[in-house]
Amino acid sequence: MSIRQERLTRETESGSGPLHKALEWNKLTKAPTVGIIGGGQLAQMLYQSAISLGIEAHLFASVTDEAAPKYFHDITRASSEAWTPPEIYHFAQKCDVVTFDHELVSPSIVRELEKRGCLMLPSSSTLELSANKANQRQRLNQLGYNLPPYQICNTVSEVVSFAERYGWPIVIKPSTGGYDGRGVYIVDKEEEIASLFSNLNAHLPFVVEPHLDLDAEGSVLAVRSTTGECVTYPMVRTLQVDGMCREVTSPGDFPQEMVAEARQIAEKLANELEVVGILAVEFFISAGKLLVNELAPRPHNTGHLTIEANTTSQFENHLRAVLGLPLGSTELRVPAAAMVNLISNSNSQNVMPHLPLALSIKEASLHLYSKSPRKNRKIGHVTATAESVDEALELARQTVHHLSGLEIVEP
Amino acid sequence: MSIRQERLTRETESGSGPLHKALEWNKLTKAPTVGIIGGGQLAQMLYQSAISLGIEAHLFASVTDEAAPKYFHDITRASSEAWTPPEIYHFAQKCDVVTFDHELVSPSIVRELEKRGCLMLPSSSTLELSANKANQRQRLNQLGYNLPPYQICNTVSEVVSFAERYGWPIVIKPSTGGYDGRGVYIVDKEEEIASLFSNLNAHLPFVVEPHLDLDAEGSVLAVRSTTGECVTYPMVRTLQVDGMCREVTSPGDFPQEMVAEARQIAEKLANELEVVGILAVEFFISAGKLLVNELAPRPHNTGHLTIEANTTSQFENHLRAVLGLPLGSTELRVPAAAMVNLISNSNSQNVMPHLPLALSIKEASLHLYSKSPRKNRKIGHVTATAESVDEALELARQTVHHLSGLEIVEP
Repeated sequence: MSIRQERLTRETESGSGPLHKALEWNKLTKAPTVGIIGGGQLAQMLYQSAISLGIEAHLFASVTDEAAPKYFHDITRASSEAWTPPEIYHFAQKCDVVTFDHELVSPSIVRELEKRGCLMLPSSSTLELSANKANQRQRLNQLGYNLPPYQICNTVSEVVSFAERYGWPIVIKPSTGGYDGRGVYIVDKEEEIASLFSNLNAHLPFVVEPHLDLDAEGSVLAVRSTTGECVTYPMVRTLQVDGMCREVTSPGDFPQEMVAEARQIAEKLANELEVVGILAVEFFISAGKLLVNELAPRPHNTGHLTIEANTTSQFENHLRAVLGLPLGSTELRVPAAAMVNLISNSNSQNVMPHLPLALSIKEASLHLYSKSPRKNRKIGHVTATAESVDEALELARQTVHHLSGLEIVEP
Repeated sequence: MSIRQERLTRETESGSGPLHKALEWNKLTKAPTVGIIGGGQLAQMLYQSAISLGIEAHLFASVTDEAAPKYFHDITRASSEAWTPPEIYHFAQKCDVVTFDHELVSPSIVRELEKRGCLMLPSSSTLELSANKANQRQRLNQLGYNLPPYQICNTVSEVVSFAERYGWPIVIKPSTGGYDGRGVYIVDKEEEIASLFSNLNAHLPFVVEPHLDLDAEGSVLAVRSTTGECVTYPMVRTLQVDGMCREVTSPGDFPQEMVAEARQIAEKLANELEVVGILAVEFFISAGKLLVNELAPRPHNTGHLTIEANTTSQFENHLRAVLGLPLGSTELRVPAAAMVNLISNSNSQNVMPHLPLALSIKEASLHLYSKSPRKNRKIGHVTATAESVDEALELARQTVHHLSGLEIVEP
């Protein structure tokens, strides 16, 4: 019997739902085990935090996962690309709580494991919401949040009439299958719509939006524990390129009232949706107003700079939340920080020869993901801390340029 | 052929010594491998930094080592407590460079591996110096550093006449075998000397010192790369209890000229002794003057707070140094920080039930070492960052009190 099973017996017997389960710390005789499903960079950074907390961490990785499996001590490899409930159940049984590196796990598998008594956090209901963009939009709309204008479309003609109403170009987001720039299509001609429908009909319906003129984009991370404690991180500014997060700066340099409003929205959402762990809330700022763009219930690219810049990183707070521990301070402990993603510019990029020049930028903190390069794949990030956001951004950009081998500057 | 062997062929053929060997980064096609000998908390924290740098790390651990083996992916376990050169050689061959978690490795084994072409950093000559307190004192004296009054004693009568000259009590430090409070004896009676000689005659000669009246104790970490680049960290203040480091605060709040002098001494020492990696220099401050007390050529307890408080941690800079990478900024990135060791108060202490109360101190960063408790064993540490040293120290102390279960305070 794992610690979880032992400790949760009472809650399970009393019939309370999965979100009310939590470790009973006062009865633990050894460190609990967190299971992490998916072996990307988020699992890798969660592992670094687990080591500090003295928590055991066990990884369930795909056959092709590359980053985290290189470093975890305890690894269960899936036998094929198609994960089976028995295989994940076998893994989850060894863990006191199971969390995720990504949202690509089928919520139905997660629900099945919950039924069998596994503590899965975030829960299947949270994952269902994030796995489907159309459902997510509808739910946010029902809850009364300010959203970009949108329509859920099932046919070409619905999309065309939306475009005629709002003007070209329009933005099309299939409900499922999107990740890091894949899954966001900017369309400026009627002819392109039909081909999207035939290529992506497995991912219907589509969320269709006008191509808004944005003042800026921002993000707030909320983190909510099994205990119900909920805190938010300061709002950061994000620069997206081709639908992929490229740069993040903190503090975000938005008006104070806007930051307060964004943090309130993120906290309210985490509570209303009963999320456990990190909930990343991405905002559009358009005509001076905050619009909720998208949610992700996991540590998020817009929070990577919290490792260096905030008292408690998003990774540590995610673990604390799923373990039912008090949450750490989310405040900035440096004047300013910037993060720039390292995106592979070819299928054969080798960053190693560029490390000496890149690290000659003394204020930069490097995070490499040990992934084989593939054009447009995120293979690392750099965070720099400084007295001002401009300075930090310049330092982080320069380091990434050096790493990319794009620019040879004498140190 | 490992990367190291391939890349170092030229240097080895040209006959330059081991300290001039270094990885040729411009020729690397994959991440290099760092070997770490010894599986304690230093290896554990080095591993966290290796993950960020995307470096492979391979652990050589004792049969009884407990902390790092729980987390490393690649581990070689020694077959017995007595490490054999063939076993370590087999391990070292798989690594591009080998470094250490502690100074308990026999320098003669390290020298043997160097002869066989392994890159061992710090080198056998550095380890020889730190492994023997009498040799270390003599060498520091020859180099002209200000030291506490001392005498190297081989007989009871030498010790007695030293005590008669300087007054009781005296401090006796056997040359070898000391670590964390073991190996420092404060003696105030003649009768105790004879029993020390009979019990510890394997560790002769003894370094004998007067029991100085100290104003304070401090520490400076120097870090020196295979490239010869050498930088120092700001001076910290240390509080020792029973010869064991208990608390560290940064900045150390010493006069500016003293800090500058201490940093100069540490840098000069690292260069003169040709250390590669971290060199911790512990200082006594007595009658307003700096005296060099002891050296340790490895990441050091007085530098643990650099993880949260300084731009680049001692662990990352140690790795950069042995890998021949540029060193990161050592400056404080927060106003103030304090570290307090968590020392086991019994052989059966269980910190898990105390985690919720301890982590209710929101500014504290916890580092647990996953070691089984043993009275007076360091099993973790807590760092807090704040606006002032006093505030940080109070927060870190409170967290450690909670973890120890010594004090039950309602959160």
